[in-house]
Amino acid sequence: MSTNLNLQAVDAVVARAVLAFDRWKLASAQSRADFLNELAHGLEWSRDPLVDIAMTETSLGKDRLGGELTRTVFQLKHFADKVLAGRLSADVENEVVAGPPPAGHPHLLRTHVPVGVVAVFAASNFPFAFSVLGGDTVSALAVGCPVVVKVHPGHPRLSRAVQAIAQGVMDSRPEWEGLVGLVEGAGFESGVHLVEHPQVAAVSFTGSLAGGRALWKIANAREVPIPFYGELGSINPVVVLPSALEQGGGERAAALAASIAGSSGQFCTSPGVLIGLKGPAMDTFVQSLAAGLSQQATHRMLTEGIERSFAAGVERLGRLTERGVSPVPVLDPSGVPKPGLFVTDAQRFVDSHELREEVFGPSCVVVLADSPAQIAEVLLSVTGSLTVTLWGLHGDDPAHHRILDAALRIGGRILFDGVPTGVAVTESQHHGGPWPSSTNALFTSVGDASSARFLRPVVLQSFPAWARARVR
Amino acid sequence: MSTNLNLQAVDAVVARAVLAFDRWKLASAQSRADFLNELAHGLEWSRDPLVDIAMTETSLGKDRLGGELTRTVFQLKHFADKVLAGRLSADVENEVVAGPPPAGHPHLLRTHVPVGVVAVFAASNFPFAFSVLGGDTVSALAVGCPVVVKVHPGHPRLSRAVQAIAQGVMDSRPEWEGLVGLVEGAGFESGVHLVEHPQVAAVSFTGSLAGGRALWKIANAREVPIPFYGELGSINPVVVLPSALEQGGGERAAALAASIAGSSGQFCTSPGVLIGLKGPAMDTFVQSLAAGLSQQATHRMLTEGIERSFAAGVERLGRLTERGVSPVPVLDPSGVPKPGLFVTDAQRFVDSHELREEVFGPSCVVVLADSPAQIAEVLLSVTGSLTVTLWGLHGDDPAHHRILDAALRIGGRILFDGVPTGVAVTESQHHGGPWPSSTNALFTSVGDASSARFLRPVVLQSFPAWARARVR
Repeated sequence: MSTNLNLQAVDAVVARAVLAFDRWKLASAQSRADFLNELAHGLEWSRDPLVDIAMTETSLGKDRLGGELTRTVFQLKHFADKVLAGRLSADVENEVVAGPPPAGHPHLLRTHVPVGVVAVFAASNFPFAFSVLGGDTVSALAVGCPVVVKVHPGHPRLSRAVQAIAQGVMDSRPEWEGLVGLVEGAGFESGVHLVEHPQVAAVSFTGSLAGGRALWKIANAREVPIPFYGELGSINPVVVLPSALEQGGGERAAALAASIAGSSGQFCTSPGVLIGLKGPAMDTFVQSLAAGLSQQATHRMLTEGIERSFAAGVERLGRLTERGVSPVPVLDPSGVPKPGLFVTDAQRFVDSHELREEVFGPSCVVVLADSPAQIAEVLLSVTGSLTVTLWGLHGDDPAHHRILDAALRIGGRILFDGVPTGVAVTESQHHGGPWPSSTNALFTSVGDASSARFLRPVVLQSFPAWARARVR
Repeated sequence: MSTNLNLQAVDAVVARAVLAFDRWKLASAQSRADFLNELAHGLEWSRDPLVDIAMTETSLGKDRLGGELTRTVFQLKHFADKVLAGRLSADVENEVVAGPPPAGHPHLLRTHVPVGVVAVFAASNFPFAFSVLGGDTVSALAVGCPVVVKVHPGHPRLSRAVQAIAQGVMDSRPEWEGLVGLVEGAGFESGVHLVEHPQVAAVSFTGSLAGGRALWKIANAREVPIPFYGELGSINPVVVLPSALEQGGGERAAALAASIAGSSGQFCTSPGVLIGLKGPAMDTFVQSLAAGLSQQATHRMLTEGIERSFAAGVERLGRLTERGVSPVPVLDPSGVPKPGLFVTDAQRFVDSHELREEVFGPSCVVVLADSPAQIAEVLLSVTGSLTVTLWGLHGDDPAHHRILDAALRIGGRILFDGVPTGVAVTESQHHGGPWPSSTNALFTSVGDASSARFLRPVVLQSFPAWARARVR
């Protein structure tokens, strides 16, 4: 027990979650689904006041926040449906095969148990969908894990308001007590304490590479290390081949501009790199993109820290690239970011580690390549990304294979049309990519499979019938 | 490129595997299955000379080694069948749903890509089944990953002989070139170099906690960290409740003695702890177990290092427990270990970290508890174990629930009958448990799901038909 008051508060919240786990791990599917649906109803019921608070704290627009709340409600209901349908994990059972091994074997049931209390580090950029009752929380609750949410300091009032709704739901049934707890505290201390807590079984995190890597190291340095599922930043390359520019180039430029600068570029899937072949068609496209960006209604960024990082990042891009297409200054006098667009040569991009670091905010680096092979090389220099978008790969030919193969090496989701922002909540979704976009690229933080992070396989061998009821 | 000759050899082997990966990741299911079946035939064809070499190098018996070779051949054929049946991964496809998000979404296909070159650290204790062509290798090859095997210094000649067979198979088709490479080198240097190699995508390891944790840290300290699937040691508690002793206690004692001391106790699932309720029935059982152990035909251990560790471990157990039932000395003059049996009180076991550390070899600590609740407490003090065996939990009552719930917190496989040694290769198998038994308890090193370690999910969105053929 810590002597620090903040840390004592963390201990108390975790202790309640530990008690909750003993009930929740064996709760019925109906109880779990009811809980998620009640949370959804609670959010929907308080829509207007919640969106108002979120607008004040995050500078994000009303439509965007309303849409995000709708998505968060959808996500809770989606997982409730999946819990009832038994679709979040699959058992495998093999009956006895008589005879000696290796062919013969006993009766085996492969099933899953929830890992325990999950620490969820809320994201700054999705104050609903990746915060108190967001994707990480719902995917853990759905499979029997209570959560302790580390509040993001960018939206503490909203976090408390959402938690008050959750508390109301928890108070309505004794079996729901303690399932969602909040931890606050300025600085890193309470977050570190949470990750080090011996009763915490797993961590999910969405945030910066520096912060995420630091916490990941702490999770690994424990006497008993625990899994740390971090989403740490992604530059989401968009490849545009000439055939995509032959017609509809203007519309594509407009869509890309909106994807780069929407919500002031503060999505984890905002495109940060555009890769094309040198030539007049690409030049025209870049001009259209610049025009499109200049029309984007950006707003202040989520926090002052993000604002400072963006200014520094754009300054770095300006220094490292051959020419900027960006208006100057990058932050206007009221602190609103102006979208930055920079152009560089493929070889320079491949050679410069700094050019490949994410600049969180509305900016994009255009990389001009000499050939499809060089486009593949540019992609491979990006070691990991949540998404890769490939426009104009219409035919089944070797140049396209090479580009797709490179995209498959680095990306978690490969799009052939549309923009990467906007991540569907589906059974098929995968939102995770090679390092540094995710600390563990085999897992997703969006979609049905996100619950797999919080389920551990176990096998029952030669078991009595009653044992089945102890694993849900 | 290193200037050290050993490390240059590592670089050369990895470089060949990287070239092989470009072919193998897109190889047909038929080609993959053919390769695994050819390896199986090659091993079977050379059975007698291979077993002879293995006997000389490992001191393991002829029957045991023959059985292990049979299992290794079975495993190769099993995975070949699964590859042909398409059973090692499951795609999920969601068609377009029209309308705005969150309900509307594009066409999405969740599929998988092989992670790349896998480094396999061979185990000392399974010179066939967890070495050059063992479980880690086959599970990687089956899903498109070439392997580089770090030879275990306990059986270098056998490793080279098995590799010669693999080389013959690789030479028979150009598309199989470079799929299995060997790395040797005394000391840790070449192993560390392999884990640090930028072209290695994942590591599997079976060995000691100290060695495994050191390599795991190195994998995490890379600029781009990679997954490290380590199996680091397990004490495999066996709980025996009175009802299991009412009849057949003698047979159970004999089976347990064989499980503890078979192959001189050098299985990862050898029971190291027996937990029962204080009383005359348990005393009788322990006497039968001691008698059974004294009849076990042990043999020299795998390596001199293991011999020394065993002697030190048994000395430690003798010092920490109240009474030993073990004959003295523990290693006879020719170096053959005598099974060690020790008895201690439950509270002392819970309080002593050292009593819970694995002693690799034929030894077992008997823990006497006052109640089923204390048995659960003893289990929970073991933070992670590959297996937990529960004898005598016949009825559906709260005392049994409590013990099973504790077992489910710490174990990967829970047996209600039989002994934990002997791990079936099936679709349902899970061979992995919480730390320290595995570095990642969500994955298994035996059974169909072991291939999941080497497959990364990717989603194709709004994709052309030809793109499907680039992911297998």
